[in-house]
Amino acid sequence: MPDFPKRGNNCIIGNNVKVCQGVVLGHNCIIEDNVTIGENVFIDNNTIVRRGVTIGDNSFIAANCIIGEYQMDYCLDRQVHLHPLAIGKKALIRSGSIIYSGSTIGDNFSTGHQVTIREKTKIGDNVSIGTLSDIQGNCIIGNYVRLHSSVHIGQKSVIDDFVWIYPYVVLTNDPTPPSEDFIGVHVHSFAIIATGAIVMPGLDIGQDCLIGAGAIVTKSVEKYAVSVGNPAKTVSDVRKIKSKITGKPVYPWREHFTRYMPWEESGFDKWYASLAIENKIQLM
Amino acid sequence: MPDFPKRGNNCIIGNNVKVCQGVVLGHNCIIEDNVTIGENVFIDNNTIVRRGVTIGDNSFIAANCIIGEYQMDYCLDRQVHLHPLAIGKKALIRSGSIIYSGSTIGDNFSTGHQVTIREKTKIGDNVSIGTLSDIQGNCIIGNYVRLHSSVHIGQKSVIDDFVWIYPYVVLTNDPTPPSEDFIGVHVHSFAIIATGAIVMPGLDIGQDCLIGAGAIVTKSVEKYAVSVGNPAKTVSDVRKIKSKITGKPVYPWREHFTRYMPWEESGFDKWYASLAIENKIQLM
Amino acid sequence: MPDFPKRGNNCIIGNNVKVCQGVVLGHNCIIEDNVTIGENVFIDNNTIVRRGVTIGDNSFIAANCIIGEYQMDYCLDRQVHLHPLAIGKKALIRSGSIIYSGSTIGDNFSTGHQVTIREKTKIGDNVSIGTLSDIQGNCIIGNYVRLHSSVHIGQKSVIDDFVWIYPYVVLTNDPTPPSEDFIGVHVHSFAIIATGAIVMPGLDIGQDCLIGAGAIVTKSVEKYAVSVGNPAKTVSDVRKIKSKITGKPVYPWREHFTRYMPWEESGFDKWYASLAIENKIQLM
Repeated sequence: MPDFPKRGNNCIIGNNVKVCQGVVLGHNCIIEDNVTIGENVFIDNNTIVRRGVTIGDNSFIAANCIIGEYQMDYCLDRQVHLHPLAIGKKALIRSGSIIYSGSTIGDNFSTGHQVTIREKTKIGDNVSIGTLSDIQGNCIIGNYVRLHSSVHIGQKSVIDDFVWIYPYVVLTNDPTPPSEDFIGVHVHSFAIIATGAIVMPGLDIGQDCLIGAGAIVTKSVEKYAVSVGNPAKTVSDVRKIKSKITGKPVYPWREHFTRYMPWEESGFDKWYASLAIENKIQLM
Repeated sequence: MPDFPKRGNNCIIGNNVKVCQGVVLGHNCIIEDNVTIGENVFIDNNTIVRRGVTIGDNSFIAANCIIGEYQMDYCLDRQVHLHPLAIGKKALIRSGSIIYSGSTIGDNFSTGHQVTIREKTKIGDNVSIGTLSDIQGNCIIGNYVRLHSSVHIGQKSVIDDFVWIYPYVVLTNDPTPPSEDFIGVHVHSFAIIATGAIVMPGLDIGQDCLIGAGAIVTKSVEKYAVSVGNPAKTVSDVRKIKSKITGKPVYPWREHFTRYMPWEESGFDKWYASLAIENKIQLM
Repeated sequence: MPDFPKRGNNCIIGNNVKVCQGVVLGHNCIIEDNVTIGENVFIDNNTIVRRGVTIGDNSFIAANCIIGEYQMDYCLDRQVHLHPLAIGKKALIRSGSIIYSGSTIGDNFSTGHQVTIREKTKIGDNVSIGTLSDIQGNCIIGNYVRLHSSVHIGQKSVIDDFVWIYPYVVLTNDPTPPSEDFIGVHVHSFAIIATGAIVMPGLDIGQDCLIGAGAIVTKSVEKYAVSVGNPAKTVSDVRKIKSKITGKPVYPWREHFTRYMPWEESGFDKWYASLAIENKIQLM
């Protein structure tokens, strides 16, 4: 059993667990074999970290989580299957969340409570996923994506960088349910999907567009479009929307909102100009 | 204390617990009095199996579940009340799920995570209930029913065999909220209710029909109808829908989709013909 | 360690825990420092009660709950921060619920399962919050409010007394997402918001009104109005709605429905007359 600097009562530690300096475990934690825990990681009461998980430095895993949940193969044969899960540095995973094995998650990841993230999910850096969200796996989520509570992301979805998705939004994937011919939705950078919108399978949600609350999106949406209703129709351009408070334009939001963003200090334009020079991203 | 062939640390086992061969318990499990556990059942860490529960052979109960959750009577007086819960063979109940006492569940049952199933629920064989679904109890779910994630089934609902229900669908039951005069929805065999549809109390959802995503269903829907919008209107017949990929009809789905179904080997028509001879079911 | 009259195995009890007569703890409970537990409180298996929580007499806290969950400040520095949580008498908190520190909750509170209630939430007496509901914090909920399952209450919402909210309703708060200029919804007394309705930021939902299932509410709603559709429009007056069963008016509901209400014995009018004399509330 490895030498944890500090841990609560009744913890169970597997074989070949690698622990860096400053790790703290709460009570009743279960750390299975071949887990690697970075510096100063805190793992709270009752949390289970399953076989083969790697947790980055300075992460905080709250109580009652299951990190590295087993997949169907284990349920069927109860044999060891290797599906590593790597979570980056400074993760904050709130209580009751379940993250499957077989995914990769970048740095500065955070979740709300009771989140489920299934296998084969690739998540970039600086992503936040809200309480009760359900990521069905086999999907790609970029950087600086923010999913609010109770978001449902179907398999084969692709979400580019800087996307915002609000509660009870669903990205569907089955054009003729029930079938097995899933076609994921592709949400492009800076798009915003407001509360309760449902996006039909295989559609493109354009860069910088705004999908209104409760929209049932049955056709792909152009960049900058404002799309609302059931079925959703494009009714305006985001650049025409003005704040009722300030009277000034509010979209594209990247020019007006900076919190948590890499341009928090510089503003979007300066940040983007510096990036464009490096040819790292291309907008518009 | 009974003789478990294999169990983790800190398990607590009640009186009169009957355990068949090959049962394995994880760590910190709590098995209350009068529980019966079939052959080769696996019960994972931290799971609570309450008084009087029967779990069928070869079932897999994942971590952090509560099986046989007590009802209101116990909360009020903290006395023993007998409300048996029987779960059939080969159940797969994923982590964090809560299943109340006082229900019956058939064979080959599976759930996602954090599912809640309340008392007086009768569930047939081969049923699957997705992550975060909330079955309010006092309802009937047939065989081969598949509820996706976050489905809400109100009390007094009746769901016939071979029904598919997708995320955030609600079967409501109160015609004049708030009231206590609940009237359940009746979903007939082979019907499909797509993501986010809401069905008003007491309606019939006809055999083989397709309720579109986000539909607000305020009138009963005929068999084979395609019903969409708010309020929902019948806009087509499912038999007219063709796959955009193959150009061929896709409904009734039972003639085109076989996975998990009893006609997986034979195709629907042969399977149905064999059944019809036995007068077991009657379609159309 | 204090002297608990009765407790299960493996419980962990902090310092300065005050326990009244008749308290019972299940197995594996964790009670942190400075907790106060009233008479005859029952706390079930695996539940965590964090630092500084006060639980009123005769409360029932089911299994796997976290009561007094820490806020972001603790996640950042892991230092003690004082955010007391007080829960009134006769609470019934069902399994898997997470209630943050830094809120106040009145008497006779009840929750379903897996409920999340974040910090700075002020909840009155006789409130019920259903399974999987997500109260985002920094909001005010009056007395006799009943939220059904899967209700999402955004920050800065204000819900007056005697309001009913049904599954998958969202009270939003961000007029130009993403922003930090949250403006909460105000739901007035006796209002009913039916399943799946979404209310836009800053709107007033008038006294006694009825928001239909799936309505996307984009303008404030007058008292007594029936509002339906996307976008929602006022189509009737609640006083014109008659029961299909009895043929009699059913709204305002307070004159026809009494269960759980303070006028359960007397009827609304007598109860109201007695209150009006005392100038305690003013209706219409």
